[in-house]
Amino acid sequence: MSYFSSDFKLGILGGGQLGKMMLYATRKFDIATKVIDSSKDAPSRLACDEFVQGDILDYDTVLEFGRSVDLLTFEIENVNVDALETLENEGKKVYPSSKTLRTIQNKATQKLFYTDHHIPTAPFSRFAYASEIEDAIDNGGLSIPFVWKSARFGYDGQGVKVIRTISDLKELPNTECIAEALIPFKNELAVIVARNESGEIKTYPTVEMEFHPEANQVEYVLCPARLPEHITNKAEALALKVADAYKHVGLLAVEMFLTKDDDVLVNEVAPRPHNSGHYSIEGSFTCQFEQHLRAILNLPLGKTESTVAGVMVNLVGAENHTGDVLYKNIEHIMAMDGVTPHIYGKKQTRPFRKMGHVTIIDKDINKARAIAQNVKETIQVISK
Amino acid sequence: MSYFSSDFKLGILGGGQLGKMMLYATRKFDIATKVIDSSKDAPSRLACDEFVQGDILDYDTVLEFGRSVDLLTFEIENVNVDALETLENEGKKVYPSSKTLRTIQNKATQKLFYTDHHIPTAPFSRFAYASEIEDAIDNGGLSIPFVWKSARFGYDGQGVKVIRTISDLKELPNTECIAEALIPFKNELAVIVARNESGEIKTYPTVEMEFHPEANQVEYVLCPARLPEHITNKAEALALKVADAYKHVGLLAVEMFLTKDDDVLVNEVAPRPHNSGHYSIEGSFTCQFEQHLRAILNLPLGKTESTVAGVMVNLVGAENHTGDVLYKNIEHIMAMDGVTPHIYGKKQTRPFRKMGHVTIIDKDINKARAIAQNVKETIQVISK
Repeated sequence: MSYFSSDFKLGILGGGQLGKMMLYATRKFDIATKVIDSSKDAPSRLACDEFVQGDILDYDTVLEFGRSVDLLTFEIENVNVDALETLENEGKKVYPSSKTLRTIQNKATQKLFYTDHHIPTAPFSRFAYASEIEDAIDNGGLSIPFVWKSARFGYDGQGVKVIRTISDLKELPNTECIAEALIPFKNELAVIVARNESGEIKTYPTVEMEFHPEANQVEYVLCPARLPEHITNKAEALALKVADAYKHVGLLAVEMFLTKDDDVLVNEVAPRPHNSGHYSIEGSFTCQFEQHLRAILNLPLGKTESTVAGVMVNLVGAENHTGDVLYKNIEHIMAMDGVTPHIYGKKQTRPFRKMGHVTIIDKDINKARAIAQNVKETIQVISK
Repeated sequence: MSYFSSDFKLGILGGGQLGKMMLYATRKFDIATKVIDSSKDAPSRLACDEFVQGDILDYDTVLEFGRSVDLLTFEIENVNVDALETLENEGKKVYPSSKTLRTIQNKATQKLFYTDHHIPTAPFSRFAYASEIEDAIDNGGLSIPFVWKSARFGYDGQGVKVIRTISDLKELPNTECIAEALIPFKNELAVIVARNESGEIKTYPTVEMEFHPEANQVEYVLCPARLPEHITNKAEALALKVADAYKHVGLLAVEMFLTKDDDVLVNEVAPRPHNSGHYSIEGSFTCQFEQHLRAILNLPLGKTESTVAGVMVNLVGAENHTGDVLYKNIEHIMAMDGVTPHIYGKKQTRPFRKMGHVTIIDKDINKARAIAQNVKETIQVISK
């Protein structure tokens, strides 16, 4: 099969920023693409060969879309997985697979998968309804504090809450959920694994994620993680084990906790290019979006080492600002050493909305981290 | 002025591969673009906000196009420069300027410009018609061998010929031209200079170009050049002097000869992103296309140092192949270390047509050069 400047057409479900950046790689390879998103102003509306406005949670829409392309992938997990399964049964290639996506879409199922495959993860209990949690506490089957996670549709800190008192329970939606042990961790880590159809598999270096304490969003991603090699080796080995358990094809971002005892536990995974890999556009031999393409098209995987150290800063909408976006002081950060802004193209900002990211590369990770802080303190995503 | 996710619109004359790669940077910054090219299948037809099919050599077409955008740039020199001048007189920003472009478009004028500005260049004679050359030889004013160059519209080796015998003169078109001394040079070098409206100026490292002996096209570009620092310093200083003489805004690629006596002479310049800077997409802190945007929008310039060594191999159509393109063995080169292909998206190949390029990055320039040779000997751009 020749993909380059050919009649082959890749379908992509979802047209957000991840899809937009995936299109840099399809353009580079001249691979024709068809994108579907519910918004006509989706960041991926440009640079694809064909754009369709439609609901990717709708069975018939996804089925019809999938039938019109040669291979189907997605840039967001929240898609109709039944349609993907039907397409696979019809012989269509869907990567990552519907089976992987189905397991991942439900956090309870995902956690059980780790338990079944002897993959270390934080202890948890599963509840069909959040209302059952209080009974479990009363019965002594669960104790406060713990982390409540909605089983479905959690994204960017939505659907995750630390429960410290009984009264915290009142605000929870009464849906399927898990209660996870509150692990006293030193660091949150991530490793992106790429695996192609032939089984060639590679990991990117372990990255370290620093979170915003309130918004539960990643503020800084550092590559490499500032940790000893025996820890990062352990994280990479665990990520490989996870990807192997899923028999994954495509990218798999494995998020992990490093406990105070230097144990590494899997938190959750994302079967796609991931925020923790954005640094790779500037800092790696092979950017994650190109790697995802290589993996799903069963091409040889690219080198995953870094060329330089990289820090990624998320650009999220400032609090108290809603409306037409303005990137205040962006010209000041562009004067800093090794700084590249990525603007996703969303016209409207609102508090904590992901509007873009900034990559800082430098030969020295500590210098990059210092510049990243300066970037963070200088640029403001506000409304006009 | 805010360019990012705003109503600002950048116009780009020409929709070839350079424009296509420029759009990677406009998409990254979410800067709206309008592109014009005579071909509806131009590589830049995707990823711009608006595409217009039209003749960029036509005065009225360029004028109308320029009036519809906020700032105008180009990806090819062969555009209607009178229209650019009118637009400037109307107050439109055009970068690089019409004045620079007018000087450069004619090789005789360009050479005179260097002489006027005390910029070292190979000695030359100017002829209004090629038919005058034979008289000059007869009179003893010119001696064989020399390099004939058409004053206008030379591109990729067209319009350049080494004249070794009187009979070589017969095939020349009878147009304005120069006869340039045949300099016995050791190397062909290039330095890309970026300069913004405020006068901030930076050079990329000196690169070394290796040419295909017959097609007179660059086969390999190596960054850094494998030359002593006192030579590359001299080349970079000369490139700065040239950009300063033009009061250039945007990128200026300065091609130079290194003579056997270690003198550096300016050959010619291109006022735009350039083939000799393609390595920068993977190998530099700031890719040349982003840098061009920074320069013309008067944003701070990015760091021009390399993160790793890079070698660029042009992918040109194989001899004896014309028709629908096939990139034979592309999957084999993708398995090599640090290799990324760029496919421009031209559906039809023909002998020596530029169809794409491949970048090889490595911490060691000699290792990258060896892999580049392997790439060159493996991939074939043929017809189906």
